[in-house]
Amino acid sequence: MGSKIIFLGLIAVSCYVASAADPSPLQDFCVADQNSTDPKVVEANDFFFTGLHLRGNTSNRFGLRPTPVTVAQVPGLNTLGISIFRVDFAPFGVTPPHTHPRASEVVLVLKGQLEVGFVASNPENRPITKVIGMGDMLAIPFGLTHFQRNIRNGTAVILAVFNSQTPGIILMANSVFGSKPDISNDVLQKAFQVDQNVISQLQNQF
Amino acid sequence: MGSKIIFLGLIAVSCYVASAADPSPLQDFCVADQNSTDPKVVEANDFFFTGLHLRGNTSNRFGLRPTPVTVAQVPGLNTLGISIFRVDFAPFGVTPPHTHPRASEVVLVLKGQLEVGFVASNPENRPITKVIGMGDMLAIPFGLTHFQRNIRNGTAVILAVFNSQTPGIILMANSVFGSKPDISNDVLQKAFQVDQNVISQLQNQF
Amino acid sequence: MGSKIIFLGLIAVSCYVASAADPSPLQDFCVADQNSTDPKVVEANDFFFTGLHLRGNTSNRFGLRPTPVTVAQVPGLNTLGISIFRVDFAPFGVTPPHTHPRASEVVLVLKGQLEVGFVASNPENRPITKVIGMGDMLAIPFGLTHFQRNIRNGTAVILAVFNSQTPGIILMANSVFGSKPDISNDVLQKAFQVDQNVISQLQNQF
Amino acid sequence: MGSKIIFLGLIAVSCYVASAADPSPLQDFCVADQNSTDPKVVEANDFFFTGLHLRGNTSNRFGLRPTPVTVAQVPGLNTLGISIFRVDFAPFGVTPPHTHPRASEVVLVLKGQLEVGFVASNPENRPITKVIGMGDMLAIPFGLTHFQRNIRNGTAVILAVFNSQTPGIILMANSVFGSKPDISNDVLQKAFQVDQNVISQLQNQF
Amino acid sequence: MGSKIIFLGLIAVSCYVASAADPSPLQDFCVADQNSTDPKVVEANDFFFTGLHLRGNTSNRFGLRPTPVTVAQVPGLNTLGISIFRVDFAPFGVTPPHTHPRASEVVLVLKGQLEVGFVASNPENRPITKVIGMGDMLAIPFGLTHFQRNIRNGTAVILAVFNSQTPGIILMANSVFGSKPDISNDVLQKAFQVDQNVISQLQNQF
Amino acid sequence: MGSKIIFLGLIAVSCYVASAADPSPLQDFCVADQNSTDPKVVEANDFFFTGLHLRGNTSNRFGLRPTPVTVAQVPGLNTLGISIFRVDFAPFGVTPPHTHPRASEVVLVLKGQLEVGFVASNPENRPITKVIGMGDMLAIPFGLTHFQRNIRNGTAVILAVFNSQTPGIILMANSVFGSKPDISNDVLQKAFQVDQNVISQLQNQF
Repeated sequence: MGSKIIFLGLIAVSCYVASAADPSPLQDFCVADQNSTDPKVVEANDFFFTGLHLRGNTSNRFGLRPTPVTVAQVPGLNTLGISIFRVDFAPFGVTPPHTHPRASEVVLVLKGQLEVGFVASNPENRPITKVIGMGDMLAIPFGLTHFQRNIRNGTAVILAVFNSQTPGIILMANSVFGSKPDISNDVLQKAFQVDQNVISQLQNQF
Repeated sequence: MGSKIIFLGLIAVSCYVASAADPSPLQDFCVADQNSTDPKVVEANDFFFTGLHLRGNTSNRFGLRPTPVTVAQVPGLNTLGISIFRVDFAPFGVTPPHTHPRASEVVLVLKGQLEVGFVASNPENRPITKVIGMGDMLAIPFGLTHFQRNIRNGTAVILAVFNSQTPGIILMANSVFGSKPDISNDVLQKAFQVDQNVISQLQNQF
Repeated sequence: MGSKIIFLGLIAVSCYVASAADPSPLQDFCVADQNSTDPKVVEANDFFFTGLHLRGNTSNRFGLRPTPVTVAQVPGLNTLGISIFRVDFAPFGVTPPHTHPRASEVVLVLKGQLEVGFVASNPENRPITKVIGMGDMLAIPFGLTHFQRNIRNGTAVILAVFNSQTPGIILMANSVFGSKPDISNDVLQKAFQVDQNVISQLQNQF
Repeated sequence: MGSKIIFLGLIAVSCYVASAADPSPLQDFCVADQNSTDPKVVEANDFFFTGLHLRGNTSNRFGLRPTPVTVAQVPGLNTLGISIFRVDFAPFGVTPPHTHPRASEVVLVLKGQLEVGFVASNPENRPITKVIGMGDMLAIPFGLTHFQRNIRNGTAVILAVFNSQTPGIILMANSVFGSKPDISNDVLQKAFQVDQNVISQLQNQF
Repeated sequence: MGSKIIFLGLIAVSCYVASAADPSPLQDFCVADQNSTDPKVVEANDFFFTGLHLRGNTSNRFGLRPTPVTVAQVPGLNTLGISIFRVDFAPFGVTPPHTHPRASEVVLVLKGQLEVGFVASNPENRPITKVIGMGDMLAIPFGLTHFQRNIRNGTAVILAVFNSQTPGIILMANSVFGSKPDISNDVLQKAFQVDQNVISQLQNQF
Repeated sequence: MGSKIIFLGLIAVSCYVASAADPSPLQDFCVADQNSTDPKVVEANDFFFTGLHLRGNTSNRFGLRPTPVTVAQVPGLNTLGISIFRVDFAPFGVTPPHTHPRASEVVLVLKGQLEVGFVASNPENRPITKVIGMGDMLAIPFGLTHFQRNIRNGTAVILAVFNSQTPGIILMANSVFGSKPDISNDVLQKAFQVDQNVISQLQNQF
C-alpha cells in the first residue's frame, strides 16, 4: 500500500467544462450559449482550502505524504492555472523520480534539509541537484524528471507550487513497474537491460 | 447612479462552454462527445451588432457612456478573442483610472481631443500620456492602469479595441471604495494614508 | 462532384466541450462542476484509427483523395492539438491552393514525386517551392497558401501532419467560386480583374 | 500597380525578439540574460499613430486603400497582440477575398454601406454575408475567407480590428495568380477547372 | 518612503529574449539561428534562491515587506511561467488593494491570521473575503483587485504564488495618486467624486 | 553505447530567439526593435529535410533508431510548433518507456506490427495499449509515459508526429539510472523498493 492512495486527489479531475484561453479557436465558429453561471452565487469557500499546516501521515514506503490543493479540492481554481501541494517527509523520506506532464514547479523548503534535483532531457541526462534548507527554493523546469530526498534524521516539509490547476504526476517507477496489467517484460528488459528475474522483482514491489 | 449600470454588459458573461486553444490539455485526456453544434444554423446576426454610430447618454458623474460589443452582445465572438467598445464623453468627461484584467487595448479617437495615458506597474508608477485627437491612436499595454480625459468643451468619442472576447473592467475607485460590503477601513487608511473621515467621504460617493 | 465530399470529415467537428489551456481565463472566475468524465472508461479505441495504408479513390477532378484523422474520427484527439491526413494523388493529381486557418503543417512524401510549395503573405506573394520525393519533408508555415502537385505519371502518397485537432481547410478556388449563394460578381471581377463571362465560367465549375 | 504597394506595411515585420507567453517553454530551460531594456526610455510616441482620420488614395483597381497600424508602424504594439487598419473604399470599391493567417477580425463601418461576408471552411463553403452601414459591426472568425464591397456610389470607410500585432494578409487572387514565379499552370487549371488561356488571362492581371 | 523600494525587484526585468510558446507564430516564418545556449553551462544556482525563511523589515507605512522570487532574482525561471513571494506583515499591516496584470495568485498563510479578499470586476464590485490562518489558502483570480490585512497584534507571514515569471504589481493607490508627474486633477476628482483638496491630500502621501 | 547517441539531435536546440505567441506579454511593454530578418532571403531548403525513407541503423541494445526532424535539423520549423520522427525497429526492438515534456504525439505504423501503449498518470497507472499494424495510428496524450514494441521477427517502422518544434524526450530508465553523476542510491532504493545491489546492477547498464 502507500503510493497508490497517496496521490488520489490528482486524477479525479478530468473533463471540466473550462472556459478557454481567448485566441486559437478549435473550429470556424462556436456561437455562445448565453445561459451562464451566475457570478453572484460564487462564495469565498469556492476558493478556499484549510489544513496545510497539518503534518501528513508519512507511514508508507516512501516516507512521504503529499497534500494536494488542485481544482479537485478547490473548484474556484478552475481556469486559474495554478495549484500547490504540501509534502511531508519522514526522516530520510523521498519523493521518487517523477514528472508533471502539464506544469513547471517551484519547491520551497518549510522545514528540514533536502537534496532536490532535476535531470535534463535526453541525451544529456545531467542531474542538476542542490541540498537546500529552510527558506530555500529551487525551480524545476516544465516536464523534466525530478526528485526530493530528506537528508536528515528528522521530518521535513516542502511546499510545491505549480502553474497548472491539474499538473498531474507520473511516478516513474510506478508508471513503469506498477501499471496493471503489466507492461510487457520484453519492453522492460530492453529498457533496463536486466533479465526477467530482476524485472519481476521490481514489479512485485507495486 | 451611473457607473453601476454603465458597464452592465460586461459581467453577464461568465461560464460559456468555449472551445479551447489547441495545446496544453488540462488533464491526461478528455475524449470528445461528438454531438456538436450544427454549423448550418449559424447566421449573420450571430456575428452582428448595430448602433455604434449613436451617441450614448453621458448624463452621469463621469460624463461617460461606454457601449460594449463583447460576447455578451454578439454570441459569435465566442472563441474569437476580440471585442470593441464605443465610448462617448460629455465635455470634460473622463474614463476614471481602470484596468482590464484580460486584455490589451487600442484607443482610437473618432471625435474631439483627449488626454490618454497609462501608468507603468510598480515601482515605476510612471505615467505615459499624450493628448490625441481625431484619427490618432494610442496602445495600452495588457493589464496596466489607464484613463482618458476629454480636454475640450465639446463631446468626444473614442473606439476602444480589445484582444479578448470578455476583457473585463476594474474601475479602481469603484473597486476600492464602492465594493459592498466595504473593504475594511483599516486597509483603506493604510493604502491611502488618510484618516477615516476621508475614507468615509470617499466611500459615500459610491 | 468530387471536392465537395472529399473533405467531409473536417467540418463535422464544431463545438466540442474541450478542456482549456491553463492560463488566460475568459472571465473573472468559473467555478468547476466536479461531475467529471471517468478516466476508467476510456479505452484504446478512443485513440485509434485504422486504414491509412489503403489507397484512396482519386477519381475526381483533382485526382486527389484525402483521408483525414482529426478529432472527428478519433475522439481521443480532443485537447491534444494534433492530427494527420493521408493524401492520395492520381498521376498528375493536385491539391489545389488552400490554407489551414488553425495549423502549421509538415508534408512527408510516402510515394512518388511532387512539387510542394507555399506562398508568403502579401505583398511578397513569393512562392517557396521544391520538388520532393519519397522520404523528403517540407514544412508549411501557419496559415499560408500552399499546394502539392504530383509531377509523375504514377500515383503518389503524402502524409500531412498538423498541430491542431481540427486544422480546417479552405480551398481557395472553392471558397471564392464555389460558395453558395455566390459571392457578388462585382467582388470577383474586381478581385480577379476579368469580365463577368470569365467569372461565370469559373463559378460554373463548382 | 496597386495591390503590390497597398499592403507594404504588413510584411516588413518579421523576426522581432519578442518576449514570450509564460507557459510552454520551447526547451528544457533557457536561463535569462539580465541585460534588459530600460523601461525608463519608453515614451508615448512608441505607442502612438496619427492620421487615421485621413482619406486614403483609392485610385487603384480595387478602389481600396488600407492604412495599417501594426507593430511595423507602432513598435509599442510588440507583445500586445492587437492591431487596427483604416480601409478606404472608392464608390463600389472592394476588398477582394482574403484571409488573415494569424487573427480574428472585427469590421466596423465608419461611413457608407457595404456588403461584408465570410465563407465557412470546406466542405461547407457557405457564405455568411450582411449589408451593414455606419455604426454596424460584423465579426470575422479566425482564418476564414472574407471580403467587403462598397455597394453605394459614394466613398466608404471601415475600421478593421485584429487580435494579433501582425495579422498578415493573403489576397487569394494575388496569392494564387500573382505569385512570381508563377504557380504551375497544371495546379491552377485543376484547381479552377478552366483551360490554360483563362489561367494566363488571370495571371496577366497581376 | 517605503512602497517605492518595496517592490523594486519586480520591474527590473523587461525584455528578456525568451523562447516562445510553440503555436501562433507572429509572422509568416522566422528561420532559427542555430547558435544556441549550451545546456552544459547551466548550473543549480541558476534555479536557486535562499532566504525565504528570514523576516523582512516591515518598518514602513503599510507594515509590509514582500520578498520577491521572480525571474529578476532567479534567471532559470525564464520561460517557466511561475514565481513566488514571501510577504511579512507587522501587526495590523496590510497589502493595499492591488492587481497583478499578468497572473493568478494563491495565498498561503504561514503565520498569523489575515483577512484576505478580492473584488469581482465591474459592475459587481462584490468583495469575496475570508479570515484565514496558518495552513489556509485562498485563490485570487487572474487580474482582479485584492488585498490582505493582518488582523492580529502580532506578525504574520504569507506565501504568494503566481503563474507568471513576472506577474507585475499595480498598487491602486500608488498607481493613481503616486504617479509622477501627477494624473490630472480633473480625472481624479471625477473618478473619486471629491474636491481638489482631498485629491491633493491623497497625492501628498506618495 | 547506443541510447546516448540515438537522440543526439534533440537537445542541441536550446535558446533560439523565437517570436512569441501574440497574447500574454511577459512584462508591461517591450518596444520592438525594427531591424528584422529579411523574408526575401528565406529559401525552400530552410523548410526541407531528406532521408526519411532510409532505414536507420538499429544495432544497439534497444534495436531502435530514431531519425529526428525538429528545429535542430530544419531551422524553418522555428515558431511553427510541429516536428516529426522516423523510428526504425529491429525485430523485437522497443522504444523504452519515455515521456515528451512538451508535446502530444501521434504514432503511425509504416511497416510491421507493434504494441503501442501509454499509461495514465498517478494513481491510475492504467496502461492503454493496442497492437497496431501498417496504416494504423494511435494518439499519445501530452506528457504521459508511453512505449512501442515490435512484436514480430522482422523490421518495423513508425512515424511519430509531435505538436512542438522541440518535443524533448525523457527515457525513464536512462533519466533515472543513467544520469551522471548518479542519483542518490537512497532515492532509487526507495523509489524501486529494491536493495543497493539491484540498483547498482541497473546503473551499470548505462
